[in-house]
Amino acid sequence: MTAWSTLSTEQLSALRERLRADFARLTSNRLSLDLTRGKPGAAQLDLSNGIDDTINGDYRSREGIDVRNYGGLRGLVEARELGSEIMDVPATNILVSGNSSLSLMYLAMETALRNGLSQGMTPWQKSGRVRVLTPVPGYDRHFALTAALGVEMLNVALTDTGPDMQAVQELVRTDSSIKGIWCVPKYANPTGCIYSDETVRQIAELPHIAAAEDFIVFWDNAYAVHDLEFPPLKLASLFEAAQIAGTQDHIVQFGSTSKITFAGAGIAFVGSAESVLARLEERISVMTVGPDKLNQLRHARFLLGRVTEHMQGHAQILKPKFTMVADKLESALGGLGIASWTNPRGGYFVSLDVMPGLAKRVVALAKEAGLAMTAAGATFPYGLDPEDRNIRIAPTFAEPDALEAAMDVLTLCVKIATIESMIDQ
Amino acid sequence: MTAWSTLSTEQLSALRERLRADFARLTSNRLSLDLTRGKPGAAQLDLSNGIDDTINGDYRSREGIDVRNYGGLRGLVEARELGSEIMDVPATNILVSGNSSLSLMYLAMETALRNGLSQGMTPWQKSGRVRVLTPVPGYDRHFALTAALGVEMLNVALTDTGPDMQAVQELVRTDSSIKGIWCVPKYANPTGCIYSDETVRQIAELPHIAAAEDFIVFWDNAYAVHDLEFPPLKLASLFEAAQIAGTQDHIVQFGSTSKITFAGAGIAFVGSAESVLARLEERISVMTVGPDKLNQLRHARFLLGRVTEHMQGHAQILKPKFTMVADKLESALGGLGIASWTNPRGGYFVSLDVMPGLAKRVVALAKEAGLAMTAAGATFPYGLDPEDRNIRIAPTFAEPDALEAAMDVLTLCVKIATIESMIDQ
Repeated sequence: MTAWSTLSTEQLSALRERLRADFARLTSNRLSLDLTRGKPGAAQLDLSNGIDDTINGDYRSREGIDVRNYGGLRGLVEARELGSEIMDVPATNILVSGNSSLSLMYLAMETALRNGLSQGMTPWQKSGRVRVLTPVPGYDRHFALTAALGVEMLNVALTDTGPDMQAVQELVRTDSSIKGIWCVPKYANPTGCIYSDETVRQIAELPHIAAAEDFIVFWDNAYAVHDLEFPPLKLASLFEAAQIAGTQDHIVQFGSTSKITFAGAGIAFVGSAESVLARLEERISVMTVGPDKLNQLRHARFLLGRVTEHMQGHAQILKPKFTMVADKLESALGGLGIASWTNPRGGYFVSLDVMPGLAKRVVALAKEAGLAMTAAGATFPYGLDPEDRNIRIAPTFAEPDALEAAMDVLTLCVKIATIESMIDQ
Repeated sequence: MTAWSTLSTEQLSALRERLRADFARLTSNRLSLDLTRGKPGAAQLDLSNGIDDTINGDYRSREGIDVRNYGGLRGLVEARELGSEIMDVPATNILVSGNSSLSLMYLAMETALRNGLSQGMTPWQKSGRVRVLTPVPGYDRHFALTAALGVEMLNVALTDTGPDMQAVQELVRTDSSIKGIWCVPKYANPTGCIYSDETVRQIAELPHIAAAEDFIVFWDNAYAVHDLEFPPLKLASLFEAAQIAGTQDHIVQFGSTSKITFAGAGIAFVGSAESVLARLEERISVMTVGPDKLNQLRHARFLLGRVTEHMQGHAQILKPKFTMVADKLESALGGLGIASWTNPRGGYFVSLDVMPGLAKRVVALAKEAGLAMTAAGATFPYGLDPEDRNIRIAPTFAEPDALEAAMDVLTLCVKIATIESMIDQ
């Protein structure tokens, strides 16, 4: 392919006409395509239907607890072991509660803000300004949660090995208003990058070097086992690094089975030091008499000891979709010098960067052609992508045919937006 | 029986010796009895085991939603209809979320405090002092939740027809720091009283007469269908009364299936005006991608249209237990003039009032004899029963034999504590 920067104005104009004709033909097809949310597809959900056959009248947990009744704020032992298998944190350091890790993140940040994350820790709200670092592009629900709690966000760049740690360390060292950092360490949403061993070690040490005594690492390991290739890439253990650094009670990890079993009907985990779990349990005890232990038991019986095997089933379904996205991007945009994108080896997203100032235009064009994309800017706090260039592609939910059609639309829209901007200049 | 007040000192002393001998015999039995928590017993839980057979591979809701996937913050239509059947609130005014109505109460009070319960309502925290009325004796978890949010509590008396409405109206009219009231309108925890039609009407009008413009009624209808006799006692509709009074967006109702199906694995409901549900949904959307719709579907398929029939099964198990408690209290304490108690026609508790200053002593004696009772004072905010006389009896979880033994211990302890105090005087 020829880089577009080398084309003459006449060549660009001719190309524009052809692209516009393609676009007119597409829009006349009245498509209804959707690449927005990171939801599992129906075939993936089917992999877990057996979970409903695990109870069969036997409501006793391994410890003899009748899971139908009240209580058990920490979660069943076997559910904590499942959390351990998924999150690479000892089972004794895991609390299982609810169906949503996002709820546990909200709880943890709110606790840090209003109560202190563990006994003796100063509540953030006693400081004046409260900010957390947000590696970008990132996950919109982290940003919405943080904003809802009235906590400010300060962007740092996400590189191929994790957050730009030099920038992070500098900020954390010098500014006591910086109280924490959001991390999606494996197959980060949306780039799919995996934090390097060195990055993990440096993050474990952040609470030590931080000017804020109450600095917290929010480690959302949402895609811990969501690999597309086996043996999978390995994320270094933050728990172990934190033990070495002595920062365990400043680090709180999250996971869930939402994209392992049923997205809406899974179980969620938080992993941390005992002092943190005790504080969270104390807060949860005010709000509920106990979690749904029956669903915890279903999950433990269905998954414990066979998480990897189960995730290979997901990979069989997802790998072709991610390959198709990569192939489509390469064949349509490769070598043109107008876009770059990631090739993740797991997770739920592909991140596409177009020329600065064009992301909103691409998404608007896609909408015109019947393709719903996540709003441009959504991968940044407050929905503000300062360069207006990042677009998140979520390939998992669409059927293969629809995904193929959607990628044709998307890449065409990238081309049109780009050529418009080149000719207008 | 002879009232003890008519006994001579010699008669009392002789009686004391006999009671002490009984107590010594009891403690030597090394009992381990428990009348603390309002948990369903195993036989009750068994009534709902069929809930696990309702899915059978069919994961589509009535509207065709795949309940295994994300989304649906309001809850499934059929789950909202189930909430309507239980709570006597239109299905369109119900939101279904999580497994715990307590969590929804926390959410609602926190929203009133920090955000305003609906669009345009002033957050309580913008006022100086914030207090809610707590009819006493009442439910300890309401008090703990309120205290955790930093909201003060002001006690009003609970009568046989509900809160002392003359006192409530006077306080609400004159003091703008009073922002709300807790209510358990049917088979109140712990007395088992049911609010009269007149009380329901007056409560619906409270937001009108309140000095506080942001006055909220927290209506925890936890025992809405938990009748022991059929046809059951009928609670007047607060929803209808609020419509007449035009106070719908100041009234928020709660319910759950916790004591209908599985205590730990049920579904929870909130009922209110659309403006309130919209605000709560907005807040929930920050914390979760959606509720466990699969469990909602199980519940709707299992219960919708047959709640009363199902609750008759519970009554068959519970009625003999409540009858035994009443019989034991009557045969041991009737006519002595040293205690009074309630005879509820539903719910989960019996409330026992001993002579002022003796509740703690009775509970301590019971503990000595191997019987765990809810801490004296627990039915009052901050654990402080100003007269130290109320004791909550929870008869549901114990097996009949254990319940009988426990009531023998409890009534003996009441007698001993009373006679000690009479002789000491």
